[in-house]
Amino acid sequence: MPAGTERPSLNLLREDVRLPACVLRDGALERNIARFQAFAEASGVLLCPHAKTSMTPALFGRQVGAGCWGLTFATCAQLEVARRHGVPRVFYANQLLGALDVRYVCGELARDPGFDFYCLADSVAGVRLLAGHVAAAGPGRPVNVLVEAGLAGGRCGVRDVGTAVEVAQAVRAAGPHLALVGVEGFEGLVRGREASRREAGVREFLGFLAGVARALDGRGLFGGDQVLVSAGGSAFYDLVIPALTALRLSRPHRVILRSGCYLTHDHGFYAGLLEDIHRRSGSAEPALEPALEVWTQVLSVPEPGLIILSAGRRDFGQDAGNPIALTHVRRGSAERRSLRESGWTMTAASDQHAHMTAPPGHGVQVGDLVALGPSHPCTTFDKWRELYLVDDGYNVIDTLPTYF
Amino acid sequence: MPAGTERPSLNLLREDVRLPACVLRDGALERNIARFQAFAEASGVLLCPHAKTSMTPALFGRQVGAGCWGLTFATCAQLEVARRHGVPRVFYANQLLGALDVRYVCGELARDPGFDFYCLADSVAGVRLLAGHVAAAGPGRPVNVLVEAGLAGGRCGVRDVGTAVEVAQAVRAAGPHLALVGVEGFEGLVRGREASRREAGVREFLGFLAGVARALDGRGLFGGDQVLVSAGGSAFYDLVIPALTALRLSRPHRVILRSGCYLTHDHGFYAGLLEDIHRRSGSAEPALEPALEVWTQVLSVPEPGLIILSAGRRDFGQDAGNPIALTHVRRGSAERRSLRESGWTMTAASDQHAHMTAPPGHGVQVGDLVALGPSHPCTTFDKWRELYLVDDGYNVIDTLPTYF
Repeated sequence: MPAGTERPSLNLLREDVRLPACVLRDGALERNIARFQAFAEASGVLLCPHAKTSMTPALFGRQVGAGCWGLTFATCAQLEVARRHGVPRVFYANQLLGALDVRYVCGELARDPGFDFYCLADSVAGVRLLAGHVAAAGPGRPVNVLVEAGLAGGRCGVRDVGTAVEVAQAVRAAGPHLALVGVEGFEGLVRGREASRREAGVREFLGFLAGVARALDGRGLFGGDQVLVSAGGSAFYDLVIPALTALRLSRPHRVILRSGCYLTHDHGFYAGLLEDIHRRSGSAEPALEPALEVWTQVLSVPEPGLIILSAGRRDFGQDAGNPIALTHVRRGSAERRSLRESGWTMTAASDQHAHMTAPPGHGVQVGDLVALGPSHPCTTFDKWRELYLVDDGYNVIDTLPTYF
Repeated sequence: MPAGTERPSLNLLREDVRLPACVLRDGALERNIARFQAFAEASGVLLCPHAKTSMTPALFGRQVGAGCWGLTFATCAQLEVARRHGVPRVFYANQLLGALDVRYVCGELARDPGFDFYCLADSVAGVRLLAGHVAAAGPGRPVNVLVEAGLAGGRCGVRDVGTAVEVAQAVRAAGPHLALVGVEGFEGLVRGREASRREAGVREFLGFLAGVARALDGRGLFGGDQVLVSAGGSAFYDLVIPALTALRLSRPHRVILRSGCYLTHDHGFYAGLLEDIHRRSGSAEPALEPALEVWTQVLSVPEPGLIILSAGRRDFGQDAGNPIALTHVRRGSAERRSLRESGWTMTAASDQHAHMTAPPGHGVQVGDLVALGPSHPCTTFDKWRELYLVDDGYNVIDTLPTYF
């Protein structure tokens, strides 16, 4: 196509798209995906990113294209989206026991020999439910199961080695229907106010997880040539990698990281966690950049220091803190001014509005554009049915549907 | 169709639908719609329910069918859904100034002579933006504008009568493009710990709103035969009705209530607000029933008093408190046991899980079903793309798509 006939792209800063809008910065995304993949490979672990974060098949494709081992999901509704979009290997980081859920998984296993699937179990009752549904569905091959190890006061997962052995034995007893392939845990649930106590708690939990793996290995409960050992959210993978790669079992094992938030990183909670990781490891790797922004319009400046924006709790998550103010663009100018050190604070949010307080001389007018940087990408992604993929100048490269 | 050939309906209690699931109880919905409509009519006010709550066109249809004056929306994306589903009259309870938003509204006004539209303005700058966009779009008739009155420290809206007059004059000055038809405010933003102080604050705000109406009326700024005066969320409509129907202007006025949460009511925040309304009015009207539930499955009972459910903050809102435990159904039995006085508490929620603590002897097993009753319907509705409409026996009557 001759250059002169190119359709000019939509530009966010020119008000070419309806606001509020959720924006993914293409360059940052691409670098995050490549860097985290390289980091996992250099660390000798498999990467199976938690894709519940984005539920955006276009991003699944990028992560798989960059070489990740598989993708992680947490519900069967999510799994179905993944399968419809051709994801070949799924780590189902949850108990699987709903009748329709198991039937769906078995249908996929029967239909597609290339589908590779792994799920968790933490109780004998759960194993029996799962095995019963699998027996009824007859997928033609066993469902792969990892025993989930949990944390006292935490979420799912066995609390002691004895229960882990019972669950593993129940999986083995469900022989033709289930296969015991490894152990799993999520260290991100460790709570504690002080970083040092939290880190000690994570190390202790990883020790428990390794102990479960050794106990099941010692009793010859694992099938297959290798054992899978999975942990690792986005907060402590630097602790997970050495703790679990150092494990010694009677047969080889592979460590699977499930970090998901590296994809877009964030402007709050995960930014702080990455600083902790860099501090602990004494390295600047992996280097991640925030890629997710919510663009809003100034609806009102009803009092001198109060700015009302056109996005609220239906547009961004607040579970890990309110978004920060990133950028101000005077309507019609497309010139960006950073708000990072400007002293703006989100003091409240209602369903469709954010209330920002700003110091005198903020220079903002009704109709101006303001970008927000959320904390915890998961609970901002899930507010949107379409995301704008933009280049560094906020030209729209693509519109990406989400499937929450 | 002969009775014997009827397709048996799906039943939620039999695990016929995938869990977690968001459920609307048909009988409760129907009664809430009829009762609130009757209440508004008996009170001599127009009802224009805030439909951002549900964003479920099947419910828009029921509300319109029951006789409401129009439907209220807060964003242009919502308005577009309403128009695609044939909603004829829209109260846009927000500032309207985005370039694409105004263009869309003008396109609809030009396309459909039956489209009746009202929006808000609270600044001269905003009026000029709106008027400029309308002038460029040329809808062939003026856009109806109400001056928004606000609360100090609150959201949008003029803070004093002088500014209201300036905004109204700007609307009048934008003559062929805009028409000034009334005043609006949202008393639900009044904060305060004690009920009595909150009520006093609401009365004061309603007095200010009435004062704005009188000031604009006294200056002859309103056009048309009647003046519209709108307020009323779901917390204080009992105070709004007498305060605003008692207003005396130089021409007739109509009061428009915008309550939205009556549709499904709730099990927390709005349940408490309705008790306040009944107490203040000394009446049991309107009688509302909670209609919205989130059904989950027990994934794990990893410790004696800890139950992990298959729904989390991606499935229900927490902004007005965690959901309560409503019902327990033993897997396979379909027999319902109330959990209302059972001492269960949701102590934490992660993206896809809820953590319930329950007293000894809770009798719950892995695989059982548990229903949750959310607080604040708006932030639970928006987590779902499909809702199940069920009868009193939890047979699925219909699947209703949402459009968030």
